[in-house]
Amino acid sequence: MDFTMFHHEAKGRYAYAIDLHNLHIRLRTGQDAKGNIKLIAFDPFVWAKDETGEYKISDPVTYEMNIEHSTKDFDWWFAEIKVPTKRAKYAFIVECEDGTYLYGPAGETAISLDDSGEFDISPLHHLGYGYPYILEEDLFHAPSWVTDTVWYQIFPERYAIGGKHLNKGELHPWGSKVEGINQFFGGDILGIASKLTEIRGLGFTGIYLTPIFKSPSTHKYNTEDYYEIDPAFGTKEDFKELVDKAHSLGIKIMIDLVYNHIGSTHPIWQDVVQNGAASKYYNWFCHRDDGSYETFATVKAMPKWNTANPDARAYLMDVTLYWAKTYGIDGFRLDVANEVSHDFWREFRKAVRGVNPEIYILGEVWDDGMPWLMGDQFDGVMNYPLAEAIWSFVSGKTDGAKLRHDISKCLVMYPRDRQKVIFNLLGTHDTSRIMTVCNNKVERVKQAFTLLMTMPGSPMVFYGDEIGLIGDGADEARQCMIWDENKSDLQAFVKDLITLRAEDKDMKSHDIIWHKADNEGVIYQKGSLMVALNPNGAEIWRR
Amino acid sequence: MDFTMFHHEAKGRYAYAIDLHNLHIRLRTGQDAKGNIKLIAFDPFVWAKDETGEYKISDPVTYEMNIEHSTKDFDWWFAEIKVPTKRAKYAFIVECEDGTYLYGPAGETAISLDDSGEFDISPLHHLGYGYPYILEEDLFHAPSWVTDTVWYQIFPERYAIGGKHLNKGELHPWGSKVEGINQFFGGDILGIASKLTEIRGLGFTGIYLTPIFKSPSTHKYNTEDYYEIDPAFGTKEDFKELVDKAHSLGIKIMIDLVYNHIGSTHPIWQDVVQNGAASKYYNWFCHRDDGSYETFATVKAMPKWNTANPDARAYLMDVTLYWAKTYGIDGFRLDVANEVSHDFWREFRKAVRGVNPEIYILGEVWDDGMPWLMGDQFDGVMNYPLAEAIWSFVSGKTDGAKLRHDISKCLVMYPRDRQKVIFNLLGTHDTSRIMTVCNNKVERVKQAFTLLMTMPGSPMVFYGDEIGLIGDGADEARQCMIWDENKSDLQAFVKDLITLRAEDKDMKSHDIIWHKADNEGVIYQKGSLMVALNPNGAEIWRR
Repeated sequence: MDFTMFHHEAKGRYAYAIDLHNLHIRLRTGQDAKGNIKLIAFDPFVWAKDETGEYKISDPVTYEMNIEHSTKDFDWWFAEIKVPTKRAKYAFIVECEDGTYLYGPAGETAISLDDSGEFDISPLHHLGYGYPYILEEDLFHAPSWVTDTVWYQIFPERYAIGGKHLNKGELHPWGSKVEGINQFFGGDILGIASKLTEIRGLGFTGIYLTPIFKSPSTHKYNTEDYYEIDPAFGTKEDFKELVDKAHSLGIKIMIDLVYNHIGSTHPIWQDVVQNGAASKYYNWFCHRDDGSYETFATVKAMPKWNTANPDARAYLMDVTLYWAKTYGIDGFRLDVANEVSHDFWREFRKAVRGVNPEIYILGEVWDDGMPWLMGDQFDGVMNYPLAEAIWSFVSGKTDGAKLRHDISKCLVMYPRDRQKVIFNLLGTHDTSRIMTVCNNKVERVKQAFTLLMTMPGSPMVFYGDEIGLIGDGADEARQCMIWDENKSDLQAFVKDLITLRAEDKDMKSHDIIWHKADNEGVIYQKGSLMVALNPNGAEIWRR
Repeated sequence: MDFTMFHHEAKGRYAYAIDLHNLHIRLRTGQDAKGNIKLIAFDPFVWAKDETGEYKISDPVTYEMNIEHSTKDFDWWFAEIKVPTKRAKYAFIVECEDGTYLYGPAGETAISLDDSGEFDISPLHHLGYGYPYILEEDLFHAPSWVTDTVWYQIFPERYAIGGKHLNKGELHPWGSKVEGINQFFGGDILGIASKLTEIRGLGFTGIYLTPIFKSPSTHKYNTEDYYEIDPAFGTKEDFKELVDKAHSLGIKIMIDLVYNHIGSTHPIWQDVVQNGAASKYYNWFCHRDDGSYETFATVKAMPKWNTANPDARAYLMDVTLYWAKTYGIDGFRLDVANEVSHDFWREFRKAVRGVNPEIYILGEVWDDGMPWLMGDQFDGVMNYPLAEAIWSFVSGKTDGAKLRHDISKCLVMYPRDRQKVIFNLLGTHDTSRIMTVCNNKVERVKQAFTLLMTMPGSPMVFYGDEIGLIGDGADEARQCMIWDENKSDLQAFVKDLITLRAEDKDMKSHDIIWHKADNEGVIYQKGSLMVALNPNGAEIWRR
C-alpha cells in the first residue's frame, strides 16, 4: 500500500458538515487500496472506565468507505458519518497484505488486531483527524430551489426587441454579423418579457441576465448607475413587469452585479476625475503612487472599487439591498468575484441573507472555487472546469477515458452539497459557443447537452445554444437571437433533456457508474438511466 | 519524475500573500525532483501583440525554487514572487530526464523548448494556478511585537501568594502534593505582580495568564462573572497594578477568554435553570430536544454558549472590549477556540482590531490550525504539533531522523508569516510537565528548551518548567511554584537561551540546515548558529 498517495485535510472538500449531525468524509488514495478502507469515528470527549479503572474512548463507530470517484491516478473514498454530539475525531483503517494500519494526520501506524478482529483504540485520540464541533453559523446553506432549476442565460442587448418606444440611437439590423464589441442591435427587457412563455415552455425555470444597469456599453459591465435600468433596455416598470411575469410563470430571475469595478462614466468616478484627492469619493477606488489607478484587467474604463473603504462598501451593500427588496430578485451573479475580497463577500452574504435567505449567490470564479464555498461567501461558482472537460471531449481533443477522469475530478472538487447547486454550463457571454466548439457537428452538441444535463448542479444554457447559434470567441458569440417559427431538432432535444431532468432525480445525482470510458466514448449509468456517448457515431443517447 | 507526489493548492499554506505585492508559493513533490523545479508567473490580463498580431501573455517571470524543508516522503519547494499588479497566474516548470513539463491544476503537460531554452507560453493561461488579486482586507496582519516575545504562562492559583488580605477560605499548605483538581493553595494576582521583576530578569517579555475572572474552580475555566476578577485572586485594582507594572517592565499581558462555555454558577445560566424556556437567556445556550444541553466535553458545569444568538454574541463582544479598553490587555488566548464558530471569531477579530490593532489573538487549537489562520480569525494557535515532535524526541520515542521530519512538517504546516507568531510550547496547564516527559533527565529538558527556542514563532514557558517542576498529567502539573533562593542550573540555561534568542535573529529564522539527523541525534544550523542534540549524551548545545 503506497501511503504517500493518501491525502486528507480536515475542513473543506475532504471533510464537511452537511447538517448539525452528519459529516461527509473523503480520502484520496492510490489505486492499490481497493476494498480495504474503513473509517473509525468517535467523540474525543466521551470516555468510559474500563475494567481496570482506566478511562478509554467510548463507543467508536466503524464505517465502510466506498470509492466515490476515480481520477487518473487516484481513488476517492467517501463515507457519511453520524455525529450525535456534533464533535468528531476520526481516522482511516487500512487493511493491507502486511497488516492493518490506522491512517491519520501523522501518517500510517500499524495496529494489532486481536482474535475477534478488534484493536486497542487508545492511540486514536492522538492519531485522528478532528472535526471539532459542527456549528450552525458555519453550515453551508444554499436555497433548496437551485438544484431543481435549469437556467437560461440572456445577454439582453442581443436577445429580443420589445420596447419599440425606447430611444436607442442608431441600431444595426437585427441578425446582421457582429463585428467587435460596440455594435448595438436593440434588445431590451420587454423583448425578454415577451418571450417568457416560450422560455418556460422549453423547461427553463431560471433566467440569468447579464448586467441591466445603466451603462454606455453593449455588455454593461461598466456600470454608470447602479440604481437605474439602462434606458435603452427599458424602465424600472418594464423590469418589474419582467420579474413579476417571470415569477408568475415559475421562473426565477438572477441579475449580474459588477462590484469589482465601476464604469468610468459613473458620476462617482467622474467626481474623482474632476476633483482628484479632494473628491469625497477618492478613497472609494485604488490609486497607485504614480497617479494611475487599479482597474479590471488593463481597462481604464473600469476603475477598481476599493472595498476596504467603509463608505464604498456601504454604498454597494445599499445597491444590493435595493434590488433585493424592491424587485424580489432571486439570485445575484457576482462579476469578477474572485478579485474582490473574501471579507467583502462575507458581509455581502450576511446582508443578502438578512433580506431573503432564498436568494442564490453565484460567484464568477473560473478556477477552483473552494475558498469561496466554505459556507460564508457564495452558494455556487460558475463551473468552468466541468465546461472545459466537456469542451475537450466534444471537440475531439480528449477521449472517453480522459472525460471520465476530468468529470470525476470535478465531482470531488467540491463537497456534495455544494456540487448540488454549482452553476454548470457549456458556454457563456465570455466564451465561444458550444456549436462552434463542436465544429458545427450538431450530434456532438447534443452530447455536450447530455453531459450537462446528467451532472449534479444547476445547469445553464446560454441563449441560442439550444438552436445551434455559432460564435468563435465572445464577441461573435453574443450574436442576435434567431427568432424562427421552425423549431430546430436541437431545441427539441434540449427540451426533452430538461423535461427528463425535471422528472428523473437520477439525472441530478452525484453517483455515477462508468461502464465504458475509452477511445470509443463513454457509457455511464445514473440510477436507472444509461447514457452512451460515441463522439464518432450518430447514435448518442438512449434510455 | 513521479507527478502523483506533487501537491499544490491555491490560497492557504501553499500560496499566500505576505503583503500587497508579494506571494509565497510552495510546491510539495516527491524526493526525485531535486534541483529541477522552477516557477513561472505572470499577470493573466497583461497581454501584448506579437509579430503576427496575436495577443500573447506578456512579461512572464521565471523564478528559481528551493527546497524549503524535507519531510519523510516529500520535498517542499518554496519561492517568493513579485506581483506588481496584485494579480498572478503561475505554474511550475519541471525538468526531467525525459523532457520539460509544466505542472498546474490539470497535472503535468509536456512542453517543447526551442534552441534558446524558451517555450511557447500561450497554454499557460489555461494551465496555471491563480491568485486572483491581493486585497488589503484579506491580508494576514499580526502584531509585530509577537515574534520578539518570549512568554511565561502562569496558572494564578499556583504561582505565588501576594494578597494576604484576601478571604480565600481554607487553603492547602503551599507546595504540598496536589491531589485532583479542587484543592486551593492561594496564589493570586499580587503574588504575580511581586514576581514581575524576576520574570523579566529571566528574559520573558510576555505573560499568559490562565483565567482570572470570577469562578468557583481552581482553574477558572467555568466563568461565574466575565466582568469581575475572582475575589480570591484579588481586585480590579490589583489587576490594574499588575498590568501597569508589567507594561512598565516591557512585559505584555495576555488573558484567557472562555467563550465556548459559561460556568453553571453564572447568574445568566442560573436564570435559565430557574426559568427554563421563559428565561430571556434561554436561547443563549444550546438546548437539546431531550431537555439536556450541550456542554464543553461532558461537563454539566460548563454549558455551551450559543454564539448563533445575536444577544449572546453581543454580550461576549462587550466583555472583550471592556477588558481590551479598560486594562490595555495585549493578548487574548481563546479557550476551546476550535469548538466556537468561525463566524463568531471573524466578528471577534474585527471588534478587537477596531479597539487596538496590536492585540495578539491566540486560539486554542491542538490540530492543524490553518482553517483559523487565513487572516480573518486568529494570529496564532497553540503549536501542539511542534510540542508532540519535541516530546517524542526527548522522551526517546523517536530518533533524530524522525525529529527532523516532524519539525519540517510543522514548518510547512503554516505560511511563514503565520509561523513567525505561532505559539510554541513544551507544556501547558493541560499537559504533563516537560521534566516528566523527559523522565526527569535534566539534560533532555535542556534539549527540549533548545529546540523550543531555536524555532520560528513566539515561544512560551509554563511557569516552573524552567526550574524543573515535575507533573504527570495536568492535575499534578499544576503544582505550586517553588520559590527557592538557589537558582537552578536549568533556570540559568533557559535564561541564556532567551538572551541568545533576543540577541540573535537567526534563532527565530524559518530556515534550517540539517547536518545530521539520525539515531545518534541531530545537528542543525540556523545562520551562524549550530545546534547539536545528542539524546544519549551530556554535551548537548554549543555555539
